[in-house]
Amino acid sequence: MPLLDSRTLEPRRTMSIEDLEAGAREMRAWTLIALQAAGSGHTGGTMSIADIAAALYLAHIKHDPADPKWEGRDRVFWSAGHKAPMLYTALGMAGYFDEMPVSYHGEPLPQFAHIRGVQECVLLRKLGSPFEGHPNSRKLPGIEVCSGSLGQGLGVACGSALNAKIYGQDYRVYCIMGDGEQQEGSVWEAVMFAAHYALDNLVAIIDDNGLQIDGATADVCNVESLAEKYRAFGWEVIECDGHDMAAILGALERADAIEGRPALILADTIKGKCVDFAEDVVGYHGVPPKDGRYGDESLDAALRCVGATDQFPPERVDEILAFADDYGRLAAARADAEVPKFGRDWWWNAGEDMQVEMEPTRNGFGRGVAEVGADPNVVAHGADITGSIRMDWFYKPDTKTEDPERKRRFVSCGIAEANMATVAAGFALEKKTPFIGSYGVFATGRNWDQLRTTIGYSHLPVKVADAHGGVSVGPDGATHQALEEIFLVTAIPGYVMFVPCDSLEAAKATKAAADNDDPTVVRFAREATPVVTSDDTPFEPGMANVIRYRGSAERFVDAFDTVLASDYASEDEDLAIIACGPMVPEAMRAAVILKEEQGLETRIVNLHTVKPVDADAVAAAARDCGVIVTAEEHQVGGMGNIVAGAIAKANLERPVRLDMIGVQDRFGESGEPWELVKVFGLTGEHIARAALDLMGK
Amino acid sequence: MPLLDSRTLEPRRTMSIEDLEAGAREMRAWTLIALQAAGSGHTGGTMSIADIAAALYLAHIKHDPADPKWEGRDRVFWSAGHKAPMLYTALGMAGYFDEMPVSYHGEPLPQFAHIRGVQECVLLRKLGSPFEGHPNSRKLPGIEVCSGSLGQGLGVACGSALNAKIYGQDYRVYCIMGDGEQQEGSVWEAVMFAAHYALDNLVAIIDDNGLQIDGATADVCNVESLAEKYRAFGWEVIECDGHDMAAILGALERADAIEGRPALILADTIKGKCVDFAEDVVGYHGVPPKDGRYGDESLDAALRCVGATDQFPPERVDEILAFADDYGRLAAARADAEVPKFGRDWWWNAGEDMQVEMEPTRNGFGRGVAEVGADPNVVAHGADITGSIRMDWFYKPDTKTEDPERKRRFVSCGIAEANMATVAAGFALEKKTPFIGSYGVFATGRNWDQLRTTIGYSHLPVKVADAHGGVSVGPDGATHQALEEIFLVTAIPGYVMFVPCDSLEAAKATKAAADNDDPTVVRFAREATPVVTSDDTPFEPGMANVIRYRGSAERFVDAFDTVLASDYASEDEDLAIIACGPMVPEAMRAAVILKEEQGLETRIVNLHTVKPVDADAVAAAARDCGVIVTAEEHQVGGMGNIVAGAIAKANLERPVRLDMIGVQDRFGESGEPWELVKVFGLTGEHIARAALDLMGK
Repeated sequence: MPLLDSRTLEPRRTMSIEDLEAGAREMRAWTLIALQAAGSGHTGGTMSIADIAAALYLAHIKHDPADPKWEGRDRVFWSAGHKAPMLYTALGMAGYFDEMPVSYHGEPLPQFAHIRGVQECVLLRKLGSPFEGHPNSRKLPGIEVCSGSLGQGLGVACGSALNAKIYGQDYRVYCIMGDGEQQEGSVWEAVMFAAHYALDNLVAIIDDNGLQIDGATADVCNVESLAEKYRAFGWEVIECDGHDMAAILGALERADAIEGRPALILADTIKGKCVDFAEDVVGYHGVPPKDGRYGDESLDAALRCVGATDQFPPERVDEILAFADDYGRLAAARADAEVPKFGRDWWWNAGEDMQVEMEPTRNGFGRGVAEVGADPNVVAHGADITGSIRMDWFYKPDTKTEDPERKRRFVSCGIAEANMATVAAGFALEKKTPFIGSYGVFATGRNWDQLRTTIGYSHLPVKVADAHGGVSVGPDGATHQALEEIFLVTAIPGYVMFVPCDSLEAAKATKAAADNDDPTVVRFAREATPVVTSDDTPFEPGMANVIRYRGSAERFVDAFDTVLASDYASEDEDLAIIACGPMVPEAMRAAVILKEEQGLETRIVNLHTVKPVDADAVAAAARDCGVIVTAEEHQVGGMGNIVAGAIAKANLERPVRLDMIGVQDRFGESGEPWELVKVFGLTGEHIARAALDLMGK
Repeated sequence: MPLLDSRTLEPRRTMSIEDLEAGAREMRAWTLIALQAAGSGHTGGTMSIADIAAALYLAHIKHDPADPKWEGRDRVFWSAGHKAPMLYTALGMAGYFDEMPVSYHGEPLPQFAHIRGVQECVLLRKLGSPFEGHPNSRKLPGIEVCSGSLGQGLGVACGSALNAKIYGQDYRVYCIMGDGEQQEGSVWEAVMFAAHYALDNLVAIIDDNGLQIDGATADVCNVESLAEKYRAFGWEVIECDGHDMAAILGALERADAIEGRPALILADTIKGKCVDFAEDVVGYHGVPPKDGRYGDESLDAALRCVGATDQFPPERVDEILAFADDYGRLAAARADAEVPKFGRDWWWNAGEDMQVEMEPTRNGFGRGVAEVGADPNVVAHGADITGSIRMDWFYKPDTKTEDPERKRRFVSCGIAEANMATVAAGFALEKKTPFIGSYGVFATGRNWDQLRTTIGYSHLPVKVADAHGGVSVGPDGATHQALEEIFLVTAIPGYVMFVPCDSLEAAKATKAAADNDDPTVVRFAREATPVVTSDDTPFEPGMANVIRYRGSAERFVDAFDTVLASDYASEDEDLAIIACGPMVPEAMRAAVILKEEQGLETRIVNLHTVKPVDADAVAAAARDCGVIVTAEEHQVGGMGNIVAGAIAKANLERPVRLDMIGVQDRFGESGEPWELVKVFGLTGEHIARAALDLMGK
């Protein structure tokens, strides 16, 4: 009884098992094309949930694509938000996008007026598209809530289900989770809650494919037996083959009939299902088919695997991908248009000289943790994204080969950041130097109370790798772009926080973290950014560097002098730019623009340590220059307000003009990293423009 | 084999079952006296854990009080930190304090040179004493880690136990938890982790007394069957009578013999055990005997119950309490000495005129939520401290009688703040207005990622009661004194945050929160603070008030004019004080001092909305006055840096002198509320002194 007309409650469409199997096949195909067009995204989990998604959206749940907010609809919460592409495809197949024009940041694009419906899903992860890397309920109909940070959906589902009980509504609530996700303690809070309230209008579905990013769930942090655990928590557990359409439908019907307790459908699935080269392969968690369009592990091979080549012959795939490409070009152009214009193109490596190398700051962390890992008292922890943040270089010091002695000192914690923090505290108490890490949202936010009370209040030397800071994380979108950590960490007494400007400085900061006795956070980014220091550049924790542009050079890095702020003699520059992290290279580029186009001299203050802050360097910059631009790839004010406070408290005898560059109090979004840097106003050109505005030029 | 000499490994003392029972009796007595002397603290849980504590510290574990950091010692982690008084007593009985002089903030006090050992524990919760409301490992030997925020200890114990496995050490690890604590998801992360690593050197002990603050655990959010749950998670479970010494020792021995998996001792206990009037009584969770020294529910009655009157006859109790009182007076005097001196005593209600009433701001929240609760679409959530934060007034609108219709809209979540946030998100999605709340550390920190991603990113109108903000929380100490929420909340896009200045404004802020469509946090305090507004005082969200002192009056509140900042015409005052929360009354008192003693005119800006901030009012104050003191009962800079940023970005053509009053980047501590306000530099006198220093006076 799915796909109702919400006014008449008559079915809009009824599908047989065969129809649903064909639907799942088509959904897999669309999803694979979307992943290919995006160039990133999750093949493994989308393929494993495909049949369940088809069963729910095309057959089992009450809903009306023409009336997405219909109060009588059944609710489906995708707690495992990274499976979003299959959610989009399911909604598209059900008809949710039939009337929705192709748009860029909400603006309809008439050139794509002929495209409607499920095809729009191939705009996955593109700048300006509503098909973000993780589901955004504010941008698309049919999505109940934003998700992407694991372990939160079941609680939302509980609230929705209890609402129906209290207010006498008869919709049913479904929640899709992964098996690795069961490592998050918040899931068990919700499991306990649902049983306590006897939420028999709630059905949880675990896509139990046995794999997570770091490996087999049984190896990373074993969650089995999930059936026994849920039963001990008072749930009814129904096990089924998650790729047998009749079995899925039967399980859903049985679950709906349970009274007096919530029901779990434990669906035995295969990660990457139907794409033979991706089936049960750990490496296919978060990437599209590898060989591009053609090859052994290509999109075309994948479409053959799922049996969709009749429906998607090469010429049709060409056409679909061309649409995605066209949209991507438009988005890139729109992003370019956001960058303030100057006399020439000053972009990275745009000219013959001033060449710069790019490397992700995370690689610097990796080299740093590999180096300090030589000390047998250093211990490293993983939270299922070990390779992504380069924590694995701890036990693969050559970045390739596992060192068994070091591997023994690597503590795999699974997706349980709160526990990881307290486990590390235990090691710190035993005089070890523990590193923990994850994407910044999870590494400093999900475990904030643990960082505060167990680690901070006890003042234990736990070291936190705060990875994926900034919008330059790219296509994963807002949920994975940490923009708040400077607020979170500097709030806690006794913490040291480094925000290194490039990969070399990231390695130095990591080593400094290992050397001090304080809880210490190193914030770094995902994308390759310019290397603007050398091995000889000074790095003193708690002391800023001053960087000065001295004239064009063949290599960008050679065009600047860098000294410790305490060693710097004022040149009474026209302005100062105070920056941290990847905004330091942008500040340097701004200095070049301001000098070459306007003859202005800029003092760049690299505030690589945001706590304790070098208040003297900040005050000196304000006193000597009188014009300050702060720049951070972070919610504006994280570093900027600290700078403003230091200036204010210095009680200078002169007025100071100040502007702050940063993310202007909004969430990130999906897009290519450098597109986002442009759209969020984080380029050297934006800094230069702000400086000129401050000076009335 | 307890109480070893760590050099010879010879026992220092061996105790029989009878000795241990006598020890437990004495520990109960010391603990009850300490609670009485403190005037607050946890009778219920300390009595229920007493026998287990005696068994561990006096008999079972390997440790040497003369060498507290001995590497070979067994570790005991008290995850349930609120049972600290019994931990202190156990350590004292074991001899940990035999060589420790009585001290104030680490300074030995020669007048108490004759007092040593367990008697020092009666300094519980006193300012300057190391016996804080919750355990502080930096202040006392024998405490492994700071605790007090539930659900964190088992993870630390796991880290310690895994360290022993990796590094080949043979100590054993114990972790004491409560049954209510099992509602925290982080516990289940650690339970899973311990099984994954087969930590058979780890023994968890649950003091399963069946009660928590809000009622029976089974009613608040049922955790049973804990035995089945732990078994399903792969643990060995040993059940025992937690008040039978032989049974406890037997269970500990059996637990130590388990191989290949961690062991849980599920100890069946009675909350308040041995104190008959407190046994199994919910109301005795967090208070000492009620009738003071004598009466039906008094200390003396309690000592009789536990059979300790022979050992503690009245005259001995007198002497012990007198010691605690003497210490308390000394601490109060030390706190007074921290307050800057002026021509006369300007303290609250010190004179005949300028009388002020005091009421806790939490009561204002209670009245507010009671009022908005008349709307059937308002839903309230509890996290086991429902009464303490006044959330219960939602369903007891007269503060006494439960309204059944409203009670149906009250969602008891247990100690599971992360899940509470997501459950509320579910209600918000269903067009309800959900209120959640807890102590600020837990209500904005423990669930930060949920506030960010599920609620903030989806922009759901969840309303957060951020209670117990500030050091004025008092004797509970640092773990329960939230000082970081302005950083945490203002970091998230789209949030509104109110920090009302008194109980009347707290009610207005609560109603404003119910009325808007945004995620909204209302921060308020525990202790009674001056009521400095009236029902007619304007309250416009997002707009500051300007308060001006107009001359002495009978009632403090009548001595001031208060208008919306946008309606205020500058009087070119000598300085401005920008404050929020309970620092607004202190700012008003500072204005009185500055006027009456120095003839200075002060503009007080009540920044009750810290997000969105009234940048115009801030900039105007800086422009018109040139001298600014910010004042917040929070880590300094939470509001102060926002103010500094607003001033800096206003690009005024004049220099501005600024200082910030707040907690100076350190954790709170135990003490009486007003003592702490003085010691942490948060009085009107401190504000006035800072202003005069800024002006060179």
